[in-house]
Amino acid sequence: MTTTLAPGADLFDRHRETLENARAAIRSRAYYSAYPESASPKVYGETAHADGKAAFEARLGKPFALQQPSSGETVATERSPYGIALDVRYPVADIDALIAAAQRAMEGWAAASYDARTGVALEALKRLNAMSFEMANAVMHTSGQAYLMGFQAGGPHAQDRALEAIAYAYDEMARVPERVLWEKPGKPEPLRIEKTYRVVPRGIALTIGCSTFPTWNAYPGLFASLVTGNAVIVKPHPLAVLPLAITVEVLQSVLRDAGFDPCVVTLAVDTPERPLAKVLAQRPEVAIVDYTGSTAFGDWLEQNAGALVYTEKAGVNSVVIDSTADLTGMMRNLAMSISLYSGQMCTTPQNLFVPAGGITANGEKLPFDEVVGALVKAVDGLLGDPARAAGVLGAIATDATLRRVEEENAKPGVVRRSEAVQNPDFPNARVRSPLIAVVDANDRERYDREAFGPIAFVVRTADTDESLRLATDESKRKGAITAIVHSTDPAVLEKAQRWARDGKVNLAANLTGGLLVNQSAAFSDYHVSGGNPSGNASLTDAAFVANRFRIIETRTPVA
Amino acid sequence: MTTTLAPGADLFDRHRETLENARAAIRSRAYYSAYPESASPKVYGETAHADGKAAFEARLGKPFALQQPSSGETVATERSPYGIALDVRYPVADIDALIAAAQRAMEGWAAASYDARTGVALEALKRLNAMSFEMANAVMHTSGQAYLMGFQAGGPHAQDRALEAIAYAYDEMARVPERVLWEKPGKPEPLRIEKTYRVVPRGIALTIGCSTFPTWNAYPGLFASLVTGNAVIVKPHPLAVLPLAITVEVLQSVLRDAGFDPCVVTLAVDTPERPLAKVLAQRPEVAIVDYTGSTAFGDWLEQNAGALVYTEKAGVNSVVIDSTADLTGMMRNLAMSISLYSGQMCTTPQNLFVPAGGITANGEKLPFDEVVGALVKAVDGLLGDPARAAGVLGAIATDATLRRVEEENAKPGVVRRSEAVQNPDFPNARVRSPLIAVVDANDRERYDREAFGPIAFVVRTADTDESLRLATDESKRKGAITAIVHSTDPAVLEKAQRWARDGKVNLAANLTGGLLVNQSAAFSDYHVSGGNPSGNASLTDAAFVANRFRIIETRTPVA
Repeated sequence: MTTTLAPGADLFDRHRETLENARAAIRSRAYYSAYPESASPKVYGETAHADGKAAFEARLGKPFALQQPSSGETVATERSPYGIALDVRYPVADIDALIAAAQRAMEGWAAASYDARTGVALEALKRLNAMSFEMANAVMHTSGQAYLMGFQAGGPHAQDRALEAIAYAYDEMARVPERVLWEKPGKPEPLRIEKTYRVVPRGIALTIGCSTFPTWNAYPGLFASLVTGNAVIVKPHPLAVLPLAITVEVLQSVLRDAGFDPCVVTLAVDTPERPLAKVLAQRPEVAIVDYTGSTAFGDWLEQNAGALVYTEKAGVNSVVIDSTADLTGMMRNLAMSISLYSGQMCTTPQNLFVPAGGITANGEKLPFDEVVGALVKAVDGLLGDPARAAGVLGAIATDATLRRVEEENAKPGVVRRSEAVQNPDFPNARVRSPLIAVVDANDRERYDREAFGPIAFVVRTADTDESLRLATDESKRKGAITAIVHSTDPAVLEKAQRWARDGKVNLAANLTGGLLVNQSAAFSDYHVSGGNPSGNASLTDAAFVANRFRIIETRTPVA
Repeated sequence: MTTTLAPGADLFDRHRETLENARAAIRSRAYYSAYPESASPKVYGETAHADGKAAFEARLGKPFALQQPSSGETVATERSPYGIALDVRYPVADIDALIAAAQRAMEGWAAASYDARTGVALEALKRLNAMSFEMANAVMHTSGQAYLMGFQAGGPHAQDRALEAIAYAYDEMARVPERVLWEKPGKPEPLRIEKTYRVVPRGIALTIGCSTFPTWNAYPGLFASLVTGNAVIVKPHPLAVLPLAITVEVLQSVLRDAGFDPCVVTLAVDTPERPLAKVLAQRPEVAIVDYTGSTAFGDWLEQNAGALVYTEKAGVNSVVIDSTADLTGMMRNLAMSISLYSGQMCTTPQNLFVPAGGITANGEKLPFDEVVGALVKAVDGLLGDPARAAGVLGAIATDATLRRVEEENAKPGVVRRSEAVQNPDFPNARVRSPLIAVVDANDRERYDREAFGPIAFVVRTADTDESLRLATDESKRKGAITAIVHSTDPAVLEKAQRWARDGKVNLAANLTGGLLVNQSAAFSDYHVSGGNPSGNASLTDAAFVANRFRIIETRTPVA
C-alpha cells in the first residue's frame, strides 16, 4: 500500500480539460455541453439502455446501502407514478450521528486542496454520466418524468448543471492567490509582509431535494458546496429518494477511492410523517441550505434558518400573446410547453394573456375565441397519438396535483378538460392531459396563484398593455421563472423588456421553433433570476457560489 | 445645450485607468493605493490643511443642504469628542417621500450602463479625495479620531476601500456578456438563439453608518450598491453624520453634473429618540442593507430584515503570547495596537493570553508578572509625551465607552488604570489612556465579552494550548476580527493556523515592527472573515458584491 500524499490530485489532472472547458463556457455563455444528451446507442453504447434498466431493477425491493451512521431502521417512501412496485428501503438517519460524522469527515475534506476536491467531484460526475440510463429509470419512476426526459434532465443535463456550478466555484476560489509578498513603500525600509489566503468552508451544507427534478435541481448547490470544502447532507424528497441516493453512493465511492472519509456526503431520508428538513435546517452546525420546493417552506427557511439559504420556490409563469407571424409555430410551441411533463416543470407557462379583441396572426386579425381554439387544437394534435402523448406527458408525481386537476376540471370556463391518458407500456401509470380554461382578467383568485400541474389559463385582457401590466405585477408579487412574449411589433417587444426588468424574470420572445421556454441550458441560461418571489438565487451565477466559503488570511512580517 | 446621450460615459473614460489598476490590484493582492495616504503638503498642496479646516469650520452652526425631500425640520445630533461646538443642522427625512424619490431616481440610474455608473462613482471619489482634509476634520470631530487618523482612515483609506468595492462589482458585472448567439447543433439546422443579459439592480440599498469609522465602514457597501444600479439611502449614526453628509453631497453633485437624478443617493438622518434604522430596514422597497455597529442590532437585522443584509458587528480580538525573539518590538507593537484611537477600533486586541508560567523572550524565560510589566511599561512609554499621546489616543466617541472605562477602573486586577489625558490643542477633549487588567482564564464573565474602548485584559492561562483553545472558542462564540500569535516555535505557529481556520479569523504572526493588527489594507486584506459572529460579510470579496444585482436574460430565436 502506498499512501496518497495529495488525495484527489490525480483525479484533478484527469478531469482538468473538462473543468477548463466549463470555465471557458461560463465566460462565453455560448453553447456547451460536457455530457452528451443524445440517448443514441452510438453515444452511450449498444447495451446502455438495457444495462441501465437492469441496474435500476436490481435495486428494487432491496435495502439501499450507504456508508454512514444509521438508526438501524429502514424506510421505503417512494411510489412509481407509472404504477410499478419500487420498495427500495433506505436507512433512516440518526441525525446527531450523521452531523457528527459529517463534521469529522469535513476535517480532511477542508484540509485538502480545492483542486483535489474538484477532482473528486468531476470523477463522480463522470461515473454518474456512465450511469445515466440507470438514473433515467430512477428519475422516471420517482418523479413521473417520461423516460427520455428522465435520461436527459436527470442525467447529462443535471451533470452539466453540476459542472457549471463547479466551474463557477472553482473560478471564485482561483481568484484568490495562495500567497503574496506585500511591500508597502516606507522609510527607511518598505514594510514587507507575507500574506497567505486560504479557502475555508462554512460548515455543513444541507441540500433539500424536490420530487420533480431530484438531480437537476439539487446538483448545483450540492456540488458547489462540496468543492468549496463543505460536507453535504442530502435530504431528498420522500417521493424521489433513489436518484439522490445513487448520487450519494457514487460520491461516497469516489471519496473512498481518493482516500477521503465518505461521510463528506451523506443521505438523510425522512418520511412525510416525520419530516427532517426543519430539524436539519435549524441545527447550528448547518451553515448552508439549498432548497427547491414549495413557496411556503422556502419562505420559512429564508426567515428561520440561521444558515445561508438558497431557494427555488414556485412562481406563476406568463405568456403575453399580442401578435405573431407564425400562428402554427407559436401554437405548436405553446402546446408542447404546457404539455411537457404534464406542466410539472417550474418553467411551464401557466397564464396566457390574450386581448379580448384577439390578435394579429400571419398578418390577419384572429378573434379571441379562435386563438383559444387554435391552442386547444394544437394540444389535441400533439397528444393525438397515445405513444407520443405518453412520451410528452410523463405521469403525475403527487396526489396533490391529481386532486388539483380534478378540481379545476369542475370549474367554469374549461375549454379543454384534463383527461386520463393510457400509457401503452405502463397500464397503471397515472397520466393526465392538460386542462385549458378561459378566465377573465378580473378573475384573479382563479389564475393569480400557482396551479401546479397540467393546468393552463387563457386570460382575457382589455389589450396587450393590460396583459403586460398583469404579467409584470404577477411576477413581482408571486414570482415567475419564465416569461414569453409573442409580438411582431417592436414597441411591444420593447415594453416586454420592461416586464422582464421590473418583474426580474427571464424573457423569451417569439418562440415558434424548437426552443421551449421550459428549457434552461447549462453554461448559458440563468435559471431563476433570484430577484422575484420564485427564488432568492440563480442557477448559476457568482452569487450562488461565492459565499459558500470564506477566505482566511495570515500576515507575517518578513525581515 | 447638448443632450448627453450616455450620461457618465465621459467620466468613465476619465477614470478608466484608476479602475483598471484597482481591478489588477484585487487580483494580485499586492500593495496598491489609488489615493495617497501621505498628509504631506507636497502631496495635497501647501494650503490643503488650512483649506480643509476652513471648509469644515464654514459648515458649523449652519443647516446642511441636500437635494432631497425633507419634512422641513432640521436636527443637530452631533457633539465633538474634542469639545468644540458643531451644531450642523441636517434635514429630517420624510421616509415615504425619500423612498419614493429614491425609486424614481433609480429608473434612470438602472437604465444607464454600468460603465456610466462606475464613472460617476469614480468621479465622486476623486472629488472626495480632494476634500480629504475637510473630511479629516469632520471625522475627527464626530468620531473622536485623532486628526491624522481622521485624514487617513476617513479620507484616502476609505476612498481606496470604496474603489476596491467598485472594482469587485465591476469585475462581476463585466463577467457577463451583453449578447451572445447560442447555436446548439441539431438536424437539419442548428438551434440559433440570440441571448441578451442585462444587469438589473435589486432595489433600494440602505447603508447604516457607525460612530467610529463613518466613511471607511460605509463606503464599500455604498459604492458597490451604487455601481450595480441600486439607489442608496444613507442612514448615518446620529453622532457621526457630517462625514456621510459630505459624501452624499459630493455624490449628488456628480450625479447632477452627469445628468442623473441626485436622489440616487440620499441621507436619512435620525435621532437617538426617533431611530430610523429599523423602520427603513423593514420597508419592502429596501432590498439591501449594509450595517456596521453593535452585535445586538446586527443580529436583529440579519433575522428580521427582508433584505439582503451585510453586517460588521462586534467581536473579541485575542493575542496569544507564547514566545518572542523581540520582546521590545512585540511590546511596542502591542502597546500601539491597544492605544491607537483608545481601543475604539473593531480590530483592536482586547484579550492577551499569557501562560501563568511566563514566556520565552529573547531566548530567556520571562515570568508572567514581568510580561505584564513590560506591556505596562511600553504603554507608559508610548503615551509619556502628551502631544504624542493625543495623536495616538484621539478622544472617546460615546458616553457608553466613558462609563465602561470608569467601571473597569474600579474592578480588581487593574495593573494600569485608565486616566484622563490632556490634549494640548483641545482643553475640553475627553481623552483616556488604556486600562490594563490581569484576569484568570476562568474569570470568563470579565473578559469573555466585548469591552469596547481603551480596555485590555491579560488573561493568565495554564499554557499556550489553553490560550489557543480559549481564543478559538471565543472567536467561534463571540466572533473576532483580528488575531495575533507571538511565538518562535513553528509548532505553535502551526496550531495558531488552526485557530484561524476554526475560528474563521484572520491571523497575524509575530508583529514586532511597523505593521499593526489594527490596519487592514484595501486591495490586499480581507476585513472581517464573514464566517464568525463578528459579521456575515467581508470587505471586500466577491460574495460582498455579486448578489447586489441580478442578471435578466432574453432569448430570441434567430431565423
